[in-house]
Parts: sequence; C-alpha cells; structure tokens
Amino acid sequence: MSGAARVGARLAELGLTLPGVAAPVAAYVPAVRDGGHVWTSGQLPFVAGALPATGKVGADVTPEDAADLARVAALNALAAVGDVLAREDGTDPVTALDRVRRVVKVVGFVASDPGFGGQPAVVNGASLLLHDLLGDAGVHARSAVGVAVLPLDSPVEIELVVAVD
Amino acid sequence: MSGAARVGARLAELGLTLPGVAAPVAAYVPAVRDGGHVWTSGQLPFVAGALPATGKVGADVTPEDAADLARVAALNALAAVGDVLAREDGTDPVTALDRVRRVVKVVGFVASDPGFGGQPAVVNGASLLLHDLLGDAGVHARSAVGVAVLPLDSPVEIELVVAVD
Amino acid sequence: MSGAARVGARLAELGLTLPGVAAPVAAYVPAVRDGGHVWTSGQLPFVAGALPATGKVGADVTPEDAADLARVAALNALAAVGDVLAREDGTDPVTALDRVRRVVKVVGFVASDPGFGGQPAVVNGASLLLHDLLGDAGVHARSAVGVAVLPLDSPVEIELVVAVD
Repeated sequence: MSGAARVGARLAELGLTLPGVAAPVAAYVPAVRDGGHVWTSGQLPFVAGALPATGKVGADVTPEDAADLARVAALNALAAVGDVLAREDGTDPVTALDRVRRVVKVVGFVASDPGFGGQPAVVNGASLLLHDLLGDAGVHARSAVGVAVLPLDSPVEIELVVAVD
Repeated sequence: MSGAARVGARLAELGLTLPGVAAPVAAYVPAVRDGGHVWTSGQLPFVAGALPATGKVGADVTPEDAADLARVAALNALAAVGDVLAREDGTDPVTALDRVRRVVKVVGFVASDPGFGGQPAVVNGASLLLHDLLGDAGVHARSAVGVAVLPLDSPVEIELVVAVD
Repeated sequence: MSGAARVGARLAELGLTLPGVAAPVAAYVPAVRDGGHVWTSGQLPFVAGALPATGKVGADVTPEDAADLARVAALNALAAVGDVLAREDGTDPVTALDRVRRVVKVVGFVASDPGFGGQPAVVNGASLLLHDLLGDAGVHARSAVGVAVLPLDSPVEIELVVAVD
C-alpha cells in the first residue's frame, strides 16, 4: 500500500467498518505474523458474534447470499491481520492494515450441496472485497473448494496469507 | 533446477506441451510471486478450455482417470507459475520454469464419493508429473483431501507453492 | 524454543514418544524444509502403521475420539518436521525439534457427517498438543474444515507450516 491511511480511507468510502476480533484462545490465535507474512486462521462470516446464515450453499443458502458472507468473512480476516499488526505497532487495526504489501493467497471453503459447482462466484465475494479495499495489493492467488460442512454449519470460511512491510 | 532449458527439454522428452494460461481476471490471478515463492490458484484440469470429465471420483470418475486429470491440473499449475515468472523476466513460460528451485507444497482436492478413500493415488498423478518434469526439485510435501464438490463439478483441483530463484 | 532439549523434556513429561516416520516415497515426502520453514504433508493418525479408527465424525466416530486422533496426527506431523531437520543436522528427530521457532499454521481436515459442525473441537486435539509441547512457540493460526472423506477413510488429517531456526 502507498500513501497514509489508505485502507482507512477506502473503508470509509465503501461504508465499511473493520469488525472487532475475538480475544485469542489459548492454543491458537486469529492470525500469526511470521517474518514478512501474516497467516490468518480460517474466518467465518460472524457479524456481531453470530452467523447471519447457516447451511449448505446450493441447498439452504443461495450463491448470492453466500458471496455476501464470503465478503464478511474476508473483512473479518483482514481485521485479524490488522489486529495482530496493531498489537506489535501500538497503533490500531485500521492504521496497521496500511502495512499490507500484498494479499498472496486466499483459500475459500464453501459448504456445498454435492450438486453445486459455483464456488468461484461465492468466493468472488471475498476476492472483490480485497481488491476494492487494497487495490493492486489485494489481487491474489486463490483456491475455491466445496466442502461437506464447516464449523457451526457456516456456509463459508476464508483464510489469507498476506505479505506485510 | 540446474542446467539450461532443463524444463523445456523434459517437456519435450515427455511429449508434453505447457498449456496457455487464461487471461487474469480483475480480482485474482492464476499465480502470485511473492519474494522467493510462487503461489498458484487452485487449478482445474482444463484442456483447451474445457474439463475432460466431471463428477465425483469413486462414483462418476474412476481413480485412474482422476489421476490423469490431476496430472493435467498440475501441468496447468506449472503453466501458471511459468506465466507469472515470464511476465517478469520478459522470457517465455517454459524458459521461466528453469527458475523453479523446489516445489514446496502440493494440495490436491479430490471431489469424492463419501465411500472413496483413494485420494493419494489420485493426487499421485500430480506428484509424479512434478517429479518427472523437475526431478529432485519436484519432490514436495503434499496433502490429499476428499471434498464434496469442486468448481464446475471438476473431479480434481491442484494448488502449488513453489520456491524460485 | 529456548533451552536445551526442551521438546524432549516436554515429551517425557507428557508421557509421549515421537513416532517413527515412514520411509519417503519417490514423488513426495513427509515434510520439506524450505529456507526458514518446514511444510508437512497432510498427516493421518497412524499408530504403529494403522489407523485406530475410520469413518465420518458425527456418524461413525465421536468428536472426543476424533480429537484424540487429531492429537495423534499432530504428533505424527511433528515427527515429520523433526525427521527432516534431523537428516540435515545429523542429530535425532527429538533434538531437532528444538529448532522449531513457531508453528505458523495448522490446517485440520475433519471427515464429517454433513450434519456435524464441531470441527473446531476436533482440531483442538492438535492445537492443544502443539501448545502443550511447544508452549508459546506452538500457538498458531488455524483452519478447521469438514470434508467429505479423507485418505483410507481417516477421520482426520493435519498439516503444519512451521518456522525453524
């Protein structure tokens, strides 16, 4: 990212607020910084601590709704990135996201009815958010996979590997 | 890899041609180089823009056919690696693959009938191709996983993390 | 890790023995060291060469038993890390594990009945083992995913990315 407070400005332009990050549990954490990279845990589309929808995409959840949930999960993943960086920097998560140099990889797991093959369109919700917020730095490699079931019967789960300054 | 044009020579010996790579879409790309690594997107076994087979391995697709598809998907993944490197180098994708120092990790997702546990033999199609083409540099860590369904009902999807010079 | 033979001491305190690692096959290996990281292959909960249980969690296998299996798979993954490092160092796998600086990422695949959403509690078996053995160095980012089926009908599969000195 170049320029000061770029991510904060884009969040405001997009009408988004970076969500809070749940307190780390003992044995694993929402994100780890290792050298020049941050790896996130798989993020669910929690909004204020609850899943807006549950079930399998193509059966219980429409692809369009699932794409919105993937967008939410990606925002939660960025919040986890910002949180771990802000703890180091003594800043805040939004400011800390200006350290993102490149989103390297996104894996999008989509809880899918076995007859549903539209995972790419679902994970696009995450991809487009990253591009919208981070511009060229948000353009990533990506895998979209349809799985049997996700934690708490979430329709989607998103994980990131991000290069940081 | 050591020696000049080694990958190109091996492709010829194996009777293989590196496929073209689809034009990048806006929000994600077939592969990202980040420092000394290239991470690919999950690659499907497209041949000339179409999937040779669809469905679940163990039900609609035999393990042997699926291994062939995993081999195709791995070749597509290498093409994505070569393409991103060639864009930097101003060379061509085959020549650029001589920059591959090591295939670090392969994840093979196999769309599987719930009663089918032969994912390793399927993903061997990818592993053997990488070894055949790259020799010791192609020997990798690997995860083979059976999933409910893949994009476009593809039987397999292969992603790579590759160390490059 | 700090201090001499720390992992060995903790293994003894926990009553654990690092299992042996199967001889590498030709095309892929249990773990690859690449620069300052070791990436493992997806590890199954083999005990003395056999799976203690098979089937889907939530149907054939209880979450509690599956958490135990995830713990076993994580120990096998650490054995793979120790093995690859010991081959370089000319030491033994337990001693070599003292080179682990941080467990960066854990992915836990759980073969799941489509109605089972308790993957996090299952993968906690792996997370807690890593924390128990490695302390702060074992605290990681993590994804827990429910898949249709795993190799040999294993209930769980665990892969690691570990930063090493």
